[in-house]
Order: sequence, then structure tokens, then C-alpha cells
Amino acid sequence: MVEGQKFTVPARKGRAVRLQRGQRIKVINTYGSQVVDTWAFNAADISECMSMEHTRGVIDKMYPEPGEAFVTTHRRPILTVVEDTSSGDHDSLIAACDRYRYELLGVEGHHDNCTDNLAGALAELGLQTPYTPSPFNMFMIKEWGEGLRLTRRPPTSRPGDYVVLRAEMDCVVAVSACPQDIVETNGPDCTPRDVDCEIS
Amino acid sequence: MVEGQKFTVPARKGRAVRLQRGQRIKVINTYGSQVVDTWAFNAADISECMSMEHTRGVIDKMYPEPGEAFVTTHRRPILTVVEDTSSGDHDSLIAACDRYRYELLGVEGHHDNCTDNLAGALAELGLQTPYTPSPFNMFMIKEWGEGLRLTRRPPTSRPGDYVVLRAEMDCVVAVSACPQDIVETNGPDCTPRDVDCEIS
Repeated sequence: MVEGQKFTVPARKGRAVRLQRGQRIKVINTYGSQVVDTWAFNAADISECMSMEHTRGVIDKMYPEPGEAFVTTHRRPILTVVEDTSSGDHDSLIAACDRYRYELLGVEGHHDNCTDNLAGALAELGLQTPYTPSPFNMFMIKEWGEGLRLTRRPPTSRPGDYVVLRAEMDCVVAVSACPQDIVETNGPDCTPRDVDCEIS
Repeated sequence: MVEGQKFTVPARKGRAVRLQRGQRIKVINTYGSQVVDTWAFNAADISECMSMEHTRGVIDKMYPEPGEAFVTTHRRPILTVVEDTSSGDHDSLIAACDRYRYELLGVEGHHDNCTDNLAGALAELGLQTPYTPSPFNMFMIKEWGEGLRLTRRPPTSRPGDYVVLRAEMDCVVAVSACPQDIVETNGPDCTPRDVDCEIS
């Protein structure tokens, strides 16, 4: 991507971009409360990808805060969180939505989903992966407590909140404006919305 | 596997077995405090596997308790937790150890690891997967709290504690007696030990 380039990820859709080491992507929750599933892959070897389970083990946290990095399946930094104007509540625990999720919710026929959005976004770059890594779900809240229970809460992010991520290696970053419109993942009005991105 | 069959997974090593729907595997922490990384795959399509991130989303818990099931990447039940005589403290958050983990710990040259153990155990059945799913780490404790911090604790399991898992589809179950001997994952003496299994 060229520095200064801006693009919009339409509601319910995905987009993948190539970043050079040192480049940054700002993901803007333009309308607020939109969850953005996020993935990253080593540009030189797409089988090496950003991994929530490796990151949690390496940094001993649920996910990185500003100044800390996500690591890959090879335990190397790939994306550093540079800035986060939201409440800082995100999710690293839950799989991307997929056709099976919507089937369980009673949907008949096609429903846009983040898993297919990743595949489609990578395909536009001529890439494919053999599986869907667990995503970093920006602005999504799945609260944990003392016991094993996890509790879904609508996002607390406000219009214009953003997260800036810096590439620590040449990589492909993919984002999906989550198409969930049945439960309150994207807020009480269950309405997926556009997300804006800027490269710098 | 034949009902009634018993086998030992040697310390630091892995083993995979085929289970028919309805069969059970009892994983016994024979000497106590040994972490057992556990995976499961649909026998008819190994690309469909037990998924921690899908399970957390489907059951809204960190991991299943007795009577509840792990689901696959297609969100279908694959293994039900039938019985658990341990404290019930396990881990679904952390990746299997791998060569990169031991390199970061300063190990030079080969070190047994759960990722290679899975690959080797599957290879003995003529199978391979394109990636290492995030495992269910039985008896491993990685505590979460109010914030983002995760804290490693030695296992609280006692000699003879066991977990019984029932296959909800014809599947391949793989276990690895974690070879971690540098940090206290397997207890304060940092000594990996054998694990015994029984099929019924």
C-alpha cells in the first residue's frame, strides 16, 4: 500500500492489504460499535500468521496494549499496537463468524461472514490459506470473570475511535467489518457498518 | 482402538488414536502435575478439527465442564467431557510449545515439543495437518483475572487424577505429554512424566 492511502471497508465485507515493515494501518470505527475481525500474515510465507494463542503465551496477556506486539505462529512480532483511542476492550478469544455460526442461528441460505470475507480478501491478492486463524476482534467485548463463564457485551467504542497497528515485518493485513446482524455483536441495533482505514 | 486397550504416552512424547463415535478415552495424570496437550480431528476430514476458539464462542465458557462438549471448526460437538477428577483447572488459551518456544528460552539444538509430537503422532496414522490447532491443555493452569494479565501456575492435579472424553463423531484424538522442562508448566521440579490412557 502507498502511504497516505485511504479506503473504506463496506459493511459486511472484508479487505486485505500489503504492508511493508514499519508501515501503519489505522482502523477507524467510523460509525462506532462496529466489530472488526483482524488477521495478519507474513508476506514471504503466508503459512506464518498472527496467532492469538501464541501471543497470549508470549506476552502473558489476553492481547497486547499500546507498545506491545502480536506475534506469529513462529513467535515473532508481526503487528504492534501503536495507539488505541477506544476503551481498550477487544477480543482475542472467539473464532470468526462463519456459515456454521449463522446456520446455528437459524439462517437459511447465504449470510456474509468474516471467515468467507478473509478468504475473499486474500483471494483478491492471489493468496489463500489452508485455514482461518483465530482473529483479533477489535472493539468486540467478550467479558471473562472469576469462573469459566464468558459474557457478550455490545461494543463501547464511539464513532471515530481507532486503533493504529504497525507492521513489524512485511505482511498482509486483512480486516472484516463483521456482518453479524442477528445478535448484538455490533451493537444493540444489530446493524453492520462501514469501517475506514488509512495507511501511513 | 479396541475397547479396554491401555497405552502409555512416554514423557515428552505424543500419541494419536482413532476413536469411533461413542468410545471414550481416559487420560490419567499418572504421576500428577503433568500437562497433556490434547487435539481431536474428524476422522472423515482431518481439516475439521476441535477448536478452542469455536468452542469458547459456542458454549460461552473458557472450556467445557463435565456434560459439555468441545466443538470443531464446523461448530459440531466432537469430544464431550464425561468425567474430571482433577480440580477442573485446565487451559484453552495457550498455543502448544514448539521449537520457537524453546529457542526463546535459550535452548540450542533440538528440544522435544508438543507441536512436533502432534505431527509425529498423526504421521504414525498416515495423517498430516497443514497447521497446529490451539490445543486443550489438560491440567495446565494459566489464570486470568480482572485485567488482561495471565498468570502461570503449576498444575494442582494429583497422581491418578483423570479426565474422560467421549467421541461425538468418529475421530482421531492426539495427546502429548508436554516436554516442558525449563519453566514450571509441569510442576516445580520441571520434570515431564508418562501419562496413561485407557479406551472404553
